[in-house]
Amino acid sequence: MTKQDSRPIGVFDSGIGGLTVLKELALQFPKESFLYLGDTARLPYGSKSAHTIRKYSEQNIHFLKRLNVKAIVIACNTASTQVPEADFEGLPLYNVISPGSERALSVSSGKRIGVLGTRATINSKAYTNKLLELDKDAQVFDQACPLFVPLAEEGWDSDPVTNIIVFRYLSQLLQHSIDTLILGCTHYPILKNSIARVTGSTIELVDSGEAIAHWLERDFIQGRLGRSDSKEHRHVQIMTTDSSAHFTEMALRILKPLKADEFKVVDL
Amino acid sequence: MTKQDSRPIGVFDSGIGGLTVLKELALQFPKESFLYLGDTARLPYGSKSAHTIRKYSEQNIHFLKRLNVKAIVIACNTASTQVPEADFEGLPLYNVISPGSERALSVSSGKRIGVLGTRATINSKAYTNKLLELDKDAQVFDQACPLFVPLAEEGWDSDPVTNIIVFRYLSQLLQHSIDTLILGCTHYPILKNSIARVTGSTIELVDSGEAIAHWLERDFIQGRLGRSDSKEHRHVQIMTTDSSAHFTEMALRILKPLKADEFKVVDL
Repeated sequence: MTKQDSRPIGVFDSGIGGLTVLKELALQFPKESFLYLGDTARLPYGSKSAHTIRKYSEQNIHFLKRLNVKAIVIACNTASTQVPEADFEGLPLYNVISPGSERALSVSSGKRIGVLGTRATINSKAYTNKLLELDKDAQVFDQACPLFVPLAEEGWDSDPVTNIIVFRYLSQLLQHSIDTLILGCTHYPILKNSIARVTGSTIELVDSGEAIAHWLERDFIQGRLGRSDSKEHRHVQIMTTDSSAHFTEMALRILKPLKADEFKVVDL
Repeated sequence: MTKQDSRPIGVFDSGIGGLTVLKELALQFPKESFLYLGDTARLPYGSKSAHTIRKYSEQNIHFLKRLNVKAIVIACNTASTQVPEADFEGLPLYNVISPGSERALSVSSGKRIGVLGTRATINSKAYTNKLLELDKDAQVFDQACPLFVPLAEEGWDSDPVTNIIVFRYLSQLLQHSIDTLILGCTHYPILKNSIARVTGSTIELVDSGEAIAHWLERDFIQGRLGRSDSKEHRHVQIMTTDSSAHFTEMALRILKPLKADEFKVVDL
């Protein structure tokens, strides 16, 4: 039984990394409208404390809720570690930890799973705990990669320096013979080519956008979420809490071939 | 004529980079007390807009003013670009742009000056404008180095990868035959060894801590600022707007051999 609901889906992230998730969702669900909030004034969340990350995340959720969204996707891995709830005052919430963990286990051949993330995401052990909750026989090896976000934002995504740094961070995980690797930060898909060059073709890469698209599709089918059946052009609006020419330029690069209808700066 | 004033000197930065300035000042002025505020919850400032940087800086100044400091040093280069005033409601303010520019010109042999900084600092052209205001014959070449802060925070300050990245950012400035290089971000002195390895011994490096210490000494002598003549042990207190074990560990490393009397988390 399919419900109809033409309200937009809210997506938030600490910055522009979550646009990799927005792109995946917007391309996969071409009739759905999206409101994206990038908290660029306060980014990065990855180096902040659990308390602060939770506080900022709740402010972002309240902001999107006031704009009458039908669900909220927490695209930021770091924020997802602090907001595990499946709904917020009746509004469906999606974090990236559960979908990413589920997908990693489903594609893994030997349950030897690597996790990359920001320092905060790795310290939280959110992926490790979720993976072990879903499969107690899984073996999980994690690694914080604090330089990946600035490398992605610098646009050095196909650069020898990035290859060296990727190799530095991954060498220990490779020694543990992982067969699957969770890219546990929304910026990391931007570096996917460099990462794949180091991991080779035998290690499955799992990114948050693909993983969460599966969950949304399941919830559309099961009726937890209504689909938009609007005959009009759907809207993709990008809001940030700070403006910067560099961000807009990066955003356009990440979103390609998706085109946003509007960019604007908002105050939370 | 020397005034006496045992109130502490306030120092603020977007994070822990300004501790390189605090250390320089605290070692040079062993009788002065210092209150350091690192706005770690909202760092980095370097990628934010001018409007947001100014707003956050004013909040930091108000906070330190309420704690009854006798002067405020804006250790953050990015914040300094947005707060050029020499006083704030009667309280002496020191930014790092003027002292750094003055010092660069005084040590430069041929007035060919390079400036390194965050994207926001370089975009602001604050150093270029100040250098040309002080000496219209100076030639200024600048370069944003967005990876330096995360490299310093990762602790890779003596690492081959850092050498490669330093060389990448500096190669254009070296082609312009600079004779002096302003380290226009308080984190950069942490990478001084790597930077010096690329620049060689013929290029003078100017860092904010040394430059601002000269200005404070001058103002102590001229009586704009009163010296502390307290017979008691002076206090060095470090406040941050967010807590994190990684920051405390980094802070202790940067401050060595200086010891802080207190670390605490505050809400602005």
